[in-house]
Amino acid sequence: MTYKSGPHFLQIPGPSHVPGRILHAIGQPTIDHRGPEFQKLANEVLAKVKPIFKTECPVVIFPSSGTGAWEAALVNTMNPGDRVLMFETGQFSTLWSELATRVGLKPEVIPGDWRHGVDAAAIEERLKADKAHEIKGVCVVHNETSTGVTSNIRAVRKAIDAAKHPALLLVDTISGLGSADYRHDEWGADVTISGSQKGLMLPPGLSFNAVGPKALKASEKATINRSYWDWQHQIGMNKDGWFPYTPATNLLYGLKEACDMMMEEGLENVFARHDRWAEATRRAVKTWGLEVLCQNADEYSPVLTAVLMPDGHDADKYREVVLDKFDMSLGSGLGKVKGKVFRIGHLGYFNDLMLMGTLSGVEMGLAVAGVPHKKGGAQAAMEYLTGNA
Amino acid sequence: MTYKSGPHFLQIPGPSHVPGRILHAIGQPTIDHRGPEFQKLANEVLAKVKPIFKTECPVVIFPSSGTGAWEAALVNTMNPGDRVLMFETGQFSTLWSELATRVGLKPEVIPGDWRHGVDAAAIEERLKADKAHEIKGVCVVHNETSTGVTSNIRAVRKAIDAAKHPALLLVDTISGLGSADYRHDEWGADVTISGSQKGLMLPPGLSFNAVGPKALKASEKATINRSYWDWQHQIGMNKDGWFPYTPATNLLYGLKEACDMMMEEGLENVFARHDRWAEATRRAVKTWGLEVLCQNADEYSPVLTAVLMPDGHDADKYREVVLDKFDMSLGSGLGKVKGKVFRIGHLGYFNDLMLMGTLSGVEMGLAVAGVPHKKGGAQAAMEYLTGNA
Amino acid sequence: MTYKSGPHFLQIPGPSHVPGRILHAIGQPTIDHRGPEFQKLANEVLAKVKPIFKTECPVVIFPSSGTGAWEAALVNTMNPGDRVLMFETGQFSTLWSELATRVGLKPEVIPGDWRHGVDAAAIEERLKADKAHEIKGVCVVHNETSTGVTSNIRAVRKAIDAAKHPALLLVDTISGLGSADYRHDEWGADVTISGSQKGLMLPPGLSFNAVGPKALKASEKATINRSYWDWQHQIGMNKDGWFPYTPATNLLYGLKEACDMMMEEGLENVFARHDRWAEATRRAVKTWGLEVLCQNADEYSPVLTAVLMPDGHDADKYREVVLDKFDMSLGSGLGKVKGKVFRIGHLGYFNDLMLMGTLSGVEMGLAVAGVPHKKGGAQAAMEYLTGNA
Amino acid sequence: MTYKSGPHFLQIPGPSHVPGRILHAIGQPTIDHRGPEFQKLANEVLAKVKPIFKTECPVVIFPSSGTGAWEAALVNTMNPGDRVLMFETGQFSTLWSELATRVGLKPEVIPGDWRHGVDAAAIEERLKADKAHEIKGVCVVHNETSTGVTSNIRAVRKAIDAAKHPALLLVDTISGLGSADYRHDEWGADVTISGSQKGLMLPPGLSFNAVGPKALKASEKATINRSYWDWQHQIGMNKDGWFPYTPATNLLYGLKEACDMMMEEGLENVFARHDRWAEATRRAVKTWGLEVLCQNADEYSPVLTAVLMPDGHDADKYREVVLDKFDMSLGSGLGKVKGKVFRIGHLGYFNDLMLMGTLSGVEMGLAVAGVPHKKGGAQAAMEYLTGNA
Repeated sequence: MTYKSGPHFLQIPGPSHVPGRILHAIGQPTIDHRGPEFQKLANEVLAKVKPIFKTECPVVIFPSSGTGAWEAALVNTMNPGDRVLMFETGQFSTLWSELATRVGLKPEVIPGDWRHGVDAAAIEERLKADKAHEIKGVCVVHNETSTGVTSNIRAVRKAIDAAKHPALLLVDTISGLGSADYRHDEWGADVTISGSQKGLMLPPGLSFNAVGPKALKASEKATINRSYWDWQHQIGMNKDGWFPYTPATNLLYGLKEACDMMMEEGLENVFARHDRWAEATRRAVKTWGLEVLCQNADEYSPVLTAVLMPDGHDADKYREVVLDKFDMSLGSGLGKVKGKVFRIGHLGYFNDLMLMGTLSGVEMGLAVAGVPHKKGGAQAAMEYLTGNA
Repeated sequence: MTYKSGPHFLQIPGPSHVPGRILHAIGQPTIDHRGPEFQKLANEVLAKVKPIFKTECPVVIFPSSGTGAWEAALVNTMNPGDRVLMFETGQFSTLWSELATRVGLKPEVIPGDWRHGVDAAAIEERLKADKAHEIKGVCVVHNETSTGVTSNIRAVRKAIDAAKHPALLLVDTISGLGSADYRHDEWGADVTISGSQKGLMLPPGLSFNAVGPKALKASEKATINRSYWDWQHQIGMNKDGWFPYTPATNLLYGLKEACDMMMEEGLENVFARHDRWAEATRRAVKTWGLEVLCQNADEYSPVLTAVLMPDGHDADKYREVVLDKFDMSLGSGLGKVKGKVFRIGHLGYFNDLMLMGTLSGVEMGLAVAGVPHKKGGAQAAMEYLTGNA
Repeated sequence: MTYKSGPHFLQIPGPSHVPGRILHAIGQPTIDHRGPEFQKLANEVLAKVKPIFKTECPVVIFPSSGTGAWEAALVNTMNPGDRVLMFETGQFSTLWSELATRVGLKPEVIPGDWRHGVDAAAIEERLKADKAHEIKGVCVVHNETSTGVTSNIRAVRKAIDAAKHPALLLVDTISGLGSADYRHDEWGADVTISGSQKGLMLPPGLSFNAVGPKALKASEKATINRSYWDWQHQIGMNKDGWFPYTPATNLLYGLKEACDMMMEEGLENVFARHDRWAEATRRAVKTWGLEVLCQNADEYSPVLTAVLMPDGHDADKYREVVLDKFDMSLGSGLGKVKGKVFRIGHLGYFNDLMLMGTLSGVEMGLAVAGVPHKKGGAQAAMEYLTGNA
Repeated sequence: MTYKSGPHFLQIPGPSHVPGRILHAIGQPTIDHRGPEFQKLANEVLAKVKPIFKTECPVVIFPSSGTGAWEAALVNTMNPGDRVLMFETGQFSTLWSELATRVGLKPEVIPGDWRHGVDAAAIEERLKADKAHEIKGVCVVHNETSTGVTSNIRAVRKAIDAAKHPALLLVDTISGLGSADYRHDEWGADVTISGSQKGLMLPPGLSFNAVGPKALKASEKATINRSYWDWQHQIGMNKDGWFPYTPATNLLYGLKEACDMMMEEGLENVFARHDRWAEATRRAVKTWGLEVLCQNADEYSPVLTAVLMPDGHDADKYREVVLDKFDMSLGSGLGKVKGKVFRIGHLGYFNDLMLMGTLSGVEMGLAVAGVPHKKGGAQAAMEYLTGNA
């Protein structure tokens, strides 16, 4: 394709399509971050973002990528050399554990096969074995963006409780928030980590920590050196509608708009449409005779579907064909599954017809790239959608 | 559908999707229409628009709907009471003939069945019979937006020439320009009429008259009262980069951008992708077991496809279902075919995956609305597209 | 100035600065002009625009420049060869009279000196002399954009009534509406003509006719050939939220926003700030030792101030200096006063500090261009504004 | 002021006005940060940003506020407990020293009076006394945003060299870059810190570290725990056009545009206009009988001017009046000078007429707020600008 006509299909699992309403909000003139108009905005945004996390706890907003919020969650709650228990759900849990090492912690990672979510029983077992309570945090990924597998956070909480272990529960729902149901308070997360460029439909540049009371208390005494990521400064100044340093004002405009859009629609409606698209996508995959990476139906991600390539076919070459011929970006396989899977993002500002364009593009790409498959996947998705219109 | 997620599918045959690049251009601050920056813009735009019409003649740009350009073409070239020969290709040729009457002309309309283009032989015959040369203009529609049928303009020119008749040839390509090949100079049009909101990918608000030398000469003596539509004022002032009254500055920004986009891509490439989408669409229609309104394969429109509903099914009710369930606007049947056809626009800023979303939406809508059809239309389109990727 | 930093000062008396809020509205995707969402928009816009004219009569919205609305007002109410009485307030009244001739009417123009508004007594006298009631319309300009002089429309109405003359009152407030108080119903206008690119803060491309009952009645029998400008079609279709041809959808988005902005602020507040800026501007002019073109204090325009250049100095050369050195566009002298006056627009989306930038630019330009003047004009304006902050 | 008409005057010393061209760039659809189009963008941006710093060294771009780049500069080059020498130029040097403490360093701050720049001789003296080379870094602020005082970086470099001291030179030019001349390579900075929301005319959300070879080498062995801020990851991945975590794609669009704008204009022209505005502003201040905070004419900031309030008058109350009456945001006094100074930003996307609006607003505000002053400041500025038009 030499010239692009029509909108690009950005079907990676985030950044997702940014609605015009949000792009417009972001495009408004920057205002004085120390003036009354900003203060009003900040107070609104800080309040509106809480129900998205289903929390009444403070939500800290960083001008940073989601990676920053991973770091913030750890450096505010842990002490140098602390042990944290992690579960290898995929590439992002792996990166997080590497980050933990870099900030001076000792991550202990329970191995996983990248095709299942967190094994809560394994967590419980390990915590029970930790009589000395050397483990200070349990870090899990709610929606593994590299695999399209979700984890049962409620179960992890129960595991910790069952082990009567004081470790904090730190949950990454960077790519889950706003697409998959998530309940910070009810599920008992201590820290929830998220980012702007997925279900929230914003460009990248904001990250979040929802901070539960136990975590907040831990942060008062935590001794890892930190400044930018420090909660105390943030939460202290947020109380009056200010930030400890220049915030990303224009993205805050967009965040306000995003929260309004999600509440106007209703979170449960948002989740329902994601589930619907995910099911339609899996039916297409099955029809093509391909395999979904996630092996447990209870753990299918509503946000993305990772698809295994047939042996002998490189997923990245296939993705190049799709990009070249149909102007669609699909997600690449990351880490261990590089070249072996491609990922279809079906999240955020999206709809049935976009999904059909997406699945048609996947199917046409398979044909053009010479990847063995059966026709009719898009057709199968369509039939599912029709039956649930 | 209570809440809309994702972009609306505006699949009427115009207004068409406006690319972000053009929306951005239009959103720039308005400038002094009597200053040097404007003059530069106007000179550029007036030059860049000519190759779109494949003409070296002046192209007059009106701040108006396309309807205004219909009126302009007539009132600049005709005298009160003049007879004009028209051909009933569909609703728009009919509306144009009504307009002719309202501005004081005597249109004579050769009846058509709305399923074929202009019958050039009938034109020739009628002109030959007009020994007194009472007919002053032949008015035809290049791309009938109400039927999805194109007409052979070159053949009409030949018919006029064969009849050795001095009537001017006035061609409406409001919905054809920039999507279907059109050649003002080569095909011998005297006036070509177009608008901004179709192949040019702009919002509505600009219309055009490409003015050939015979037409321009006629306008010098034409006596229908006119002011806003008067070419002489326009062309005179255009020579120096000005307009006789405040132009629609922001739409001119967009027009410049649109011309640049089309030339960057290459007009022949633009036409080729329209043809491709049209063929894919017709294969879908055929597979559904439905009938394309256009009956002559040489006259299929690359811009839109009008589809006949099965007897006993109302096209407008069906369209409501599609809008409600799938957030897609399809074109309604107009005039004689109201309720009997729906129209699928596949033009302008569009691509294969949007087309697949569109055709999937049409197919899902047929199912949801209970319209008898065979499945597999979208699949058939996909196979055609794959084979021509 | 070789490179422009910062926003251009567009201080011509329209097009005026378009607020970001309106540019954003205009930049939204175009929708189906035959769908329910459009219908809702149209009904809203058609209702919201009425209070701007202070009328309960229908307001017809044309996709055209203001010039089109001049033509529409005449061709809907007059018959071929009808006599209309006009008053020469300046270049725009002159252009309108020329247009009247072109559409087949016989304008009779009472001469004016371009420094005063309409002489209502002269109107009354002429109408009284017209025993045969040959004069069918009285056409006056409310805010003469070429001179910065307003006219007393109420007085013109009284003059017509005093003469017991049935002529219709047609008022052009293209550049007055939304900046200067205007009352279609209360003042007894039969047709009011306006445009989008002045007080309404939109880009050019929409024009208006507010149509009183007498005018509407006249239009039922009026015999000038017309199609695009025809009110009957418009008003008929507007009743259900439609337009007789493709409307300028994106400008309608902007119009809705503009009406909302003006009502949120309150029309009387809008007028008050225009009056304030105009007074500040005149104090600056006086301090510079220059002369305001308008000679009657009751007729000063709140929209713009036309300033006479000292003898021997060319206003257009001066304007070039201001544009070149200070990136500000001032209005040129038009017609009879070409080169003799420049015009300062102080209207629409504007504020005190923009005005001070403007007046400073005028003063600095006078110095740079070597135009004899006294310093302190901007200072004088500032003192007035301070005293009325 | 109850309703705002016209653009807000954001005359704080950053965030500065964002040009429409940049807002438009930012408002484009987000793309795949792992695709070829992004790679091309990244390579361009990473190259285009270097000449802005006048460096050929790598420039690391963080998705963060400027504060993050302060932290990054320290944690990449220092070891826990390292001593850094700082100079108290104002509030920002103070905040930076507090940050140094928080990340585990031992800052030693040479006191200053907030009215002068860095005393290079004091630096030299201190470094000479540090025979053991315990001081690992010298941290100075190029343009103190809290005071409007610049520091001579070249002199600081010479002081370090004269002392034959191996300490790294870390320079904050967050508010100087792109407005005041800055030369990373020529002046011998080891790390230069900046941000997006000042001279670069972007919204806040990006920060920068230009990294010299000595600093880069130090980072290889530096042992402060770090992840988000780590240069090695960034510079390693940047080589191929990638980032180690999701970048702020849309701000990168804007950054590319900003670099293009600055290079099109020419950096020296950019600096010249800032100097001109600063001089005009100081003339206004002097005429008002007020005092500029900066006491050394060689150190006047071209970016902002901090003005001392007369005794007994609160700067913040005055600022409220200006905001309320004239919709202009002025910078507040920070830290030690809270309530005692206000700051006028005259930077970035700005021009002479905006400056005159600004200075008029300051002068009118003084009058309305009852702050003793002499009139004529704006007039004095105007005369200076006229003499240098």
